Amino acid sequence: MACTTFVVLSLCSFLLFDGCLAQLPWESLQQQQLWGSFRQQQKHSLRGRSQCQIERLNAQKPSRSFESEAGRTEFWDRNNEEFQCAGRGVHGTVIPGCAETFESQSQSRGSGERSRRFRDRHQKILRFREGDVLALPAGVAHWAYNDGDQPLISVSLLDTSNEANQLDQRFRKFFLAGNQQREQHSHGQEGRGQSQQERGQSGNIFNGFDAEMLAEAFNIDTEMVRKLQSQDDERGFIVRAERFQVVSPQWEEEEQERPQGEWNGLEETLCQVKLRENIGNPSRADVYNPRGGRISSLNSHKLPILNHLQLSAERGVLYRNAIMVPHWNTNAHSIIYVTGGSGRIQIVGNSGRSVFNDRVSEGQVVVVPQNFAVVKKASEEGLQWVAFKTNDNAMMTPLASRLSAIRAIPEEVLMNSYDISREDAKSLKYNRDEAIILGPNPRPSRQHDA
Amino acid sequence: MACTTFVVLSLCSFLLFDGCLAQLPWESLQQQQLWGSFRQQQKHSLRGRSQCQIERLNAQKPSRSFESEAGRTEFWDRNNEEFQCAGRGVHGTVIPGCAETFESQSQSRGSGERSRRFRDRHQKILRFREGDVLALPAGVAHWAYNDGDQPLISVSLLDTSNEANQLDQRFRKFFLAGNQQREQHSHGQEGRGQSQQERGQSGNIFNGFDAEMLAEAFNIDTEMVRKLQSQDDERGFIVRAERFQVVSPQWEEEEQERPQGEWNGLEETLCQVKLRENIGNPSRADVYNPRGGRISSLNSHKLPILNHLQLSAERGVLYRNAIMVPHWNTNAHSIIYVTGGSGRIQIVGNSGRSVFNDRVSEGQVVVVPQNFAVVKKASEEGLQWVAFKTNDNAMMTPLASRLSAIRAIPEEVLMNSYDISREDAKSLKYNRDEAIILGPNPRPSRQHDA
Amino acid sequence: MACTTFVVLSLCSFLLFDGCLAQLPWESLQQQQLWGSFRQQQKHSLRGRSQCQIERLNAQKPSRSFESEAGRTEFWDRNNEEFQCAGRGVHGTVIPGCAETFESQSQSRGSGERSRRFRDRHQKILRFREGDVLALPAGVAHWAYNDGDQPLISVSLLDTSNEANQLDQRFRKFFLAGNQQREQHSHGQEGRGQSQQERGQSGNIFNGFDAEMLAEAFNIDTEMVRKLQSQDDERGFIVRAERFQVVSPQWEEEEQERPQGEWNGLEETLCQVKLRENIGNPSRADVYNPRGGRISSLNSHKLPILNHLQLSAERGVLYRNAIMVPHWNTNAHSIIYVTGGSGRIQIVGNSGRSVFNDRVSEGQVVVVPQNFAVVKKASEEGLQWVAFKTNDNAMMTPLASRLSAIRAIPEEVLMNSYDISREDAKSLKYNRDEAIILGPNPRPSRQHDA
Repeated sequence: MACTTFVVLSLCSFLLFDGCLAQLPWESLQQQQLWGSFRQQQKHSLRGRSQCQIERLNAQKPSRSFESEAGRTEFWDRNNEEFQCAGRGVHGTVIPGCAETFESQSQSRGSGERSRRFRDRHQKILRFREGDVLALPAGVAHWAYNDGDQPLISVSLLDTSNEANQLDQRFRKFFLAGNQQREQHSHGQEGRGQSQQERGQSGNIFNGFDAEMLAEAFNIDTEMVRKLQSQDDERGFIVRAERFQVVSPQWEEEEQERPQGEWNGLEETLCQVKLRENIGNPSRADVYNPRGGRISSLNSHKLPILNHLQLSAERGVLYRNAIMVPHWNTNAHSIIYVTGGSGRIQIVGNSGRSVFNDRVSEGQVVVVPQNFAVVKKASEEGLQWVAFKTNDNAMMTPLASRLSAIRAIPEEVLMNSYDISREDAKSLKYNRDEAIILGPNPRPSRQHDA
Repeated sequence: MACTTFVVLSLCSFLLFDGCLAQLPWESLQQQQLWGSFRQQQKHSLRGRSQCQIERLNAQKPSRSFESEAGRTEFWDRNNEEFQCAGRGVHGTVIPGCAETFESQSQSRGSGERSRRFRDRHQKILRFREGDVLALPAGVAHWAYNDGDQPLISVSLLDTSNEANQLDQRFRKFFLAGNQQREQHSHGQEGRGQSQQERGQSGNIFNGFDAEMLAEAFNIDTEMVRKLQSQDDERGFIVRAERFQVVSPQWEEEEQERPQGEWNGLEETLCQVKLRENIGNPSRADVYNPRGGRISSLNSHKLPILNHLQLSAERGVLYRNAIMVPHWNTNAHSIIYVTGGSGRIQIVGNSGRSVFNDRVSEGQVVVVPQNFAVVKKASEEGLQWVAFKTNDNAMMTPLASRLSAIRAIPEEVLMNSYDISREDAKSLKYNRDEAIILGPNPRPSRQHDA
Repeated sequence: MACTTFVVLSLCSFLLFDGCLAQLPWESLQQQQLWGSFRQQQKHSLRGRSQCQIERLNAQKPSRSFESEAGRTEFWDRNNEEFQCAGRGVHGTVIPGCAETFESQSQSRGSGERSRRFRDRHQKILRFREGDVLALPAGVAHWAYNDGDQPLISVSLLDTSNEANQLDQRFRKFFLAGNQQREQHSHGQEGRGQSQQERGQSGNIFNGFDAEMLAEAFNIDTEMVRKLQSQDDERGFIVRAERFQVVSPQWEEEEQERPQGEWNGLEETLCQVKLRENIGNPSRADVYNPRGGRISSLNSHKLPILNHLQLSAERGVLYRNAIMVPHWNTNAHSIIYVTGGSGRIQIVGNSGRSVFNDRVSEGQVVVVPQNFAVVKKASEEGLQWVAFKTNDNAMMTPLASRLSAIRAIPEEVLMNSYDISREDAKSLKYNRDEAIILGPNPRPSRQHDA
């Protein structure tokens, strides 16, 4: 039941994806997409490679890119994660065993209004907007539709190392519709074991079944089976929706109508589980320093399904020249996607050597392994990011400032460890009295203010 | 505390195993067996191979076969699972730390009846019959005895990829009695790392200890130690029981005597945990279509120990020409053992290509990986199977029929995705109104009946 | 949140480490140590190697050894565990997000006593003594100080195969202070992938950050940054503490002051979790035989944090010539460290062959894999050990004596399995009426006393 996808929405232009550097694949959704996501989460990808080569981290170009009728998708191989970032839209998730609880009146012409056949029934649909995070359990089918007036960009993490994935490390989604994508350009090395044959093959899941079997299973004729298999469809997997009337007036109120006291035990079946939460709103910040910026975290205490997914997310905003304190993540990897601005990130490994020290800007992705130390500093234009963490309650230990490990240690231990005076130990412990976000350029001082 | 063995019993002749094709090992028990099962469950076997080669699934011949005094055992290497299938019998499990709660009066001749030494005390013993599933935690010793009047066949799954196995992927059971088995014939490739030396070595666990140490530990003489080590025993590990009086009259009532309100906290120690449940009885079906057949599932809601074992089972019966809908397992692999009849199984991988499309019949085994799509269709003679699933609450999503993903999706999404009309979308959604089991040969129709 | 380190304390001379043979690394702490432990626990180390070569177990020499100003540390590569064994001392753990709840008055000269700046605040500190076990969650920083009058020896297990470790199998701790250690001598093969470059690099975690970044984050000058980075420090990572006044009078009473009813929900954050328990006191024995010895177990029922750590410990004492019964561990590996005396250990694998049969003595380490059978017999001088087990509630099944698998099995099963008489079966079951610890040399007898 563990899950994988976070869709984080922010208002950014589609063209920004040109030339962006990231280690992780992401998808751009412009119109509508229908797929059955085969997220092959496995223990070996991020978590537990038998020999991690973490000598030097870097940022890579996308290795594959697919052009569809109404959008483009770029993938970063070998990391098995996928990012989406962006406007507003509609998202549908097919949760196995759940009832079709939405009825929408379709607008067919010239038919009696009371006829049952003019109503469509389907499972719950969610509206999403900028700053929303969607959590999807492994193995569910889902689709999205952009009903806004601008391009829609989303960033998603697919955790193939999650316990929910009992297969290998490859990213193995399948599609319920569509056909062979046209591969555009392939830069960078391709995924190990990702053979040419496989990449060329992108028929939808129905494509592999015998036509007669499908005709019997659906009770349809073979012409319809061909449509189902989409063999002649060349639109790719992002298609332009010419008719899309799913949004009925009462549906707009769905958010207020969320049932409160109607739980009947079925929620365990995931049918009524909450899948969406917003972390973009500044009023939801968990850490706020008016001189430096803010951080909002989304963990399983706020969105309980994350306990099954063993994932969490963080939205960070640093003002100009502000610093997020050097720290290490004690129980998770952190995958940072820069959504705006620019800055500098330094990452230090366990042997005390720098493994990453570079300027980052919008569209770039940096991975911070568990227990590696990291510091972020915003440039003059500030720095914004979304970070995904591979633990539903990711914890970190700051190295400096008010909540740091240094403050938690007795003066005498610091004095002996660093061979410094008591005054120096006090400086180390108390010279910075801010917490996680540090304002820019304090004047250096050996006076502590504790 | 996670577990592994399911013993599924069905009435079938022993000879049927000749020439049967299966990917997984199984054991045939004809008389009595005593062993300490070293189930080396590990994360790497089914769950999480670093590079799955799931291009083409197939069915294999057993690679090893052992002849014993009173039975034969065949193994399918490289998959570390073991199947057993069969009449009725008696099963004993040694659960560590539990008391000997059964007292059976032994029938020794010419001794005073009241003497304490004429009573035997031992741990709980279970009777099993056709259709029973037994769940055994990792690391427990167990034995079985056929007290019926016909051959006993069982099918069992040993999950070496379970978290309970902290060792490697090999199947590493040990025996508490018996000695070197005579290997019969070895077809098929043998397991990687399964050296000739190892296969030749099958002494019981006492064999490896010094005789003097055992003599002291048991307080017995060295002649008895030789018996314990079974060095001269050539009967194999299925032996004919010439005296077996364990079944006392009152023991027959054991099933009714299961304690209901006597739990005292010790059940956590597994001493009183329920290990057996029947899924063969048609009245226990979870899915039933009088035109098509039935499915009975056994999950951790019905047999709580399965929560520790992270396994579940399914009994399926398809009538002639019936179909089990195309579907994918969202959170588990499925290992299907055909117990009767024949039919066709198609499996489709994530790239939309068929990886298995063949006729199957009694005795064959097919593995359906997580998130691969599968459809089963019975032949004229019907199809029966037992499936083991690697999750205690395995879930699946149908692709067609009343509970399918297609039904859960709005019409407009289908219309745009498949580029079809509203009428066609309605056909896709509503032309089959059965649930999981579909009756044979409906007349094709574009009229939906919703 | 799973954890790794056990510090087991016993009174033994520091010199004893010379020439000791063990498979696992340990550290000797003589004075004070400050480090951020990067315990990279992963599923692949002990638990789940893809191909275990468990044909022959043995004991090895340490492959690396580091000399520090005030102590020496030896490591056993390739096993990623670490042992510590020892006097008494003070231990500090930095738990992320917890407050500095200890205030100690520092003894600065010539300053006003009421000034707030003369008090030091830090997180909770624990005193430990011989027989204590400390449990540390993954990713926390910790340090230790020897305030006794004799060398302090500790043994610790670092479980890199724990779920808490999402990285690879290497032992990847980092230090918060200190610098490049001087490597002494390296015998034995070194860890795979442990390159020369890495071993030469041991700068502390601050070393990898830019000096300007640290100066700003700490609000200190660059001279202090150099101290923080310890670039000129040649004392190693065990240093002599010349001033260490952390122990205040009231702190001595800390053990009695442990809050009982003051829990406010924050304990979930680990701030007030119990990390220490003593298993050295004979009165805490779980198994006691006045003729043979005693065993004390520490599991998650006694120290709840072990549930997160998935580890447990056992303290065993065998009197002269006594035996711990042959048994197998059903759900855990057992890592045995001999703390005193000597004896013989036999280990038998699943194929019935001996994989270890040797004399062991103080300082040696033996690993017993899951489901392998093992027997220990003390020499004339007795045998004492500490065993770490890779399950928070490790279970074992004895092969002989009162609680054994043999006793749990009906007589008829034994009679048929070993082809013995009923009298012989009774001898096997009842000739030893002791439980886990067996006294020496009973006279062999075929008379059972049940």
